[in-house]
Amino acid sequence: MMQRHFVQELEALKSNLVRMGSLTEQAIHDSITALLDRNVEIAHQVIQREERINVFELEIDNAVVDILALQQPVASDLRFILASMKINNDLERIGDHAVNIAESAISYAAHPPLGIELDLPKMAQIAETMLREALDAFIHGNSKLGRNVLRNDDIIDELNRKTVRDLVEVIRTQPNSVEQALDFVRVSRNLERVGDLATNIAEEVIYVAEAHVVKHRSEQREHSGPRPE
Amino acid sequence: MMQRHFVQELEALKSNLVRMGSLTEQAIHDSITALLDRNVEIAHQVIQREERINVFELEIDNAVVDILALQQPVASDLRFILASMKINNDLERIGDHAVNIAESAISYAAHPPLGIELDLPKMAQIAETMLREALDAFIHGNSKLGRNVLRNDDIIDELNRKTVRDLVEVIRTQPNSVEQALDFVRVSRNLERVGDLATNIAEEVIYVAEAHVVKHRSEQREHSGPRPE
Repeated sequence: MMQRHFVQELEALKSNLVRMGSLTEQAIHDSITALLDRNVEIAHQVIQREERINVFELEIDNAVVDILALQQPVASDLRFILASMKINNDLERIGDHAVNIAESAISYAAHPPLGIELDLPKMAQIAETMLREALDAFIHGNSKLGRNVLRNDDIIDELNRKTVRDLVEVIRTQPNSVEQALDFVRVSRNLERVGDLATNIAEEVIYVAEAHVVKHRSEQREHSGPRPE
Repeated sequence: MMQRHFVQELEALKSNLVRMGSLTEQAIHDSITALLDRNVEIAHQVIQREERINVFELEIDNAVVDILALQQPVASDLRFILASMKINNDLERIGDHAVNIAESAISYAAHPPLGIELDLPKMAQIAETMLREALDAFIHGNSKLGRNVLRNDDIIDELNRKTVRDLVEVIRTQPNSVEQALDFVRVSRNLERVGDLATNIAEEVIYVAEAHVVKHRSEQREHSGPRPE
């Protein structure tokens, strides 16, 4: 009976994390829409909905503490539950980045448009895909899918570097567009950071599935890994 | 006998987190020195030393998993240990920001100096103080000191906004300094982010000491709390 209860609690934890993932993915999607369509109303909705994500994070965190205290899991169950706690925190941070992007969208809409979108829509699409795949990998314990996320992170990092370089040129040639260009720099770095957090999630999945840590190994291999902005 | 072993493990965990805190504080300090003194060698040292911080994070994380699995702590011990895990992760992220600043220092040193330092030295000093106080609060379970950290976060947030505004003006009047100004924007946002992470640590301390969560409450109060860049 106790055993069955534990299995149910793990399933509830999984489905809550999936719901949390959907909320944050939607927030990123809407914040980029707000930016590109210069739609301040959608941006304000993203900012308002952050509260729900924060409350949900606390509920999941409390559920994790209860499971640890009452069920005293060991071995792979323990690792899965601790990974859930970290993933929950990563998702909440992605929600924060959506708010940053929404704030940039509001700032951007207050100035004349820049006239170019650069690679921001593409970066947003990759970031959303990474997040969705990282969560799918988590749900199905699929470390192969997790490794796919790691590869996409290199692409989004390169797009971020290119975008910032392009924006430096925009500022140099149109110094009066500096505010708008800096909004875009901020959005680019926030999207790159979303990619980093999706990568963290994928690394946790691989860690649980293969019971060893990949995150700093991949950094060693590349001499310099993805980092937060 | 088991009981005594557990107490020793908690003490070892505490002192390892303090050591981790010292490493990251030093990294932030050195990265800012590298920037302001245009000292590329120090910047490279910060980047090289990140590996030690990453390895140390994994060791602490593994120790936490072992304690949870072998000692099966409950109640306040469990909350303290889970908080340690989060603090460990926050410290590692601070190490990442030191590397970002070091990279900006290298980029900045490759261009003519901007001739102004703005509030970056002051922001760095506040960020270091916040980090030190957050760790002191953790060691002594001092939630009052923790609340001091939360207040300093408002100051560093405001300095970041002011610095970015100032840099927008620099770019507008000296479009040829755009690269250097963007390096400074990046450093400013990274320092603000270090302040956010020190705030996270302080919130964990208050949470453990007072057994309730402050982090999203303070956000509700202010309508908009500190967020990562």
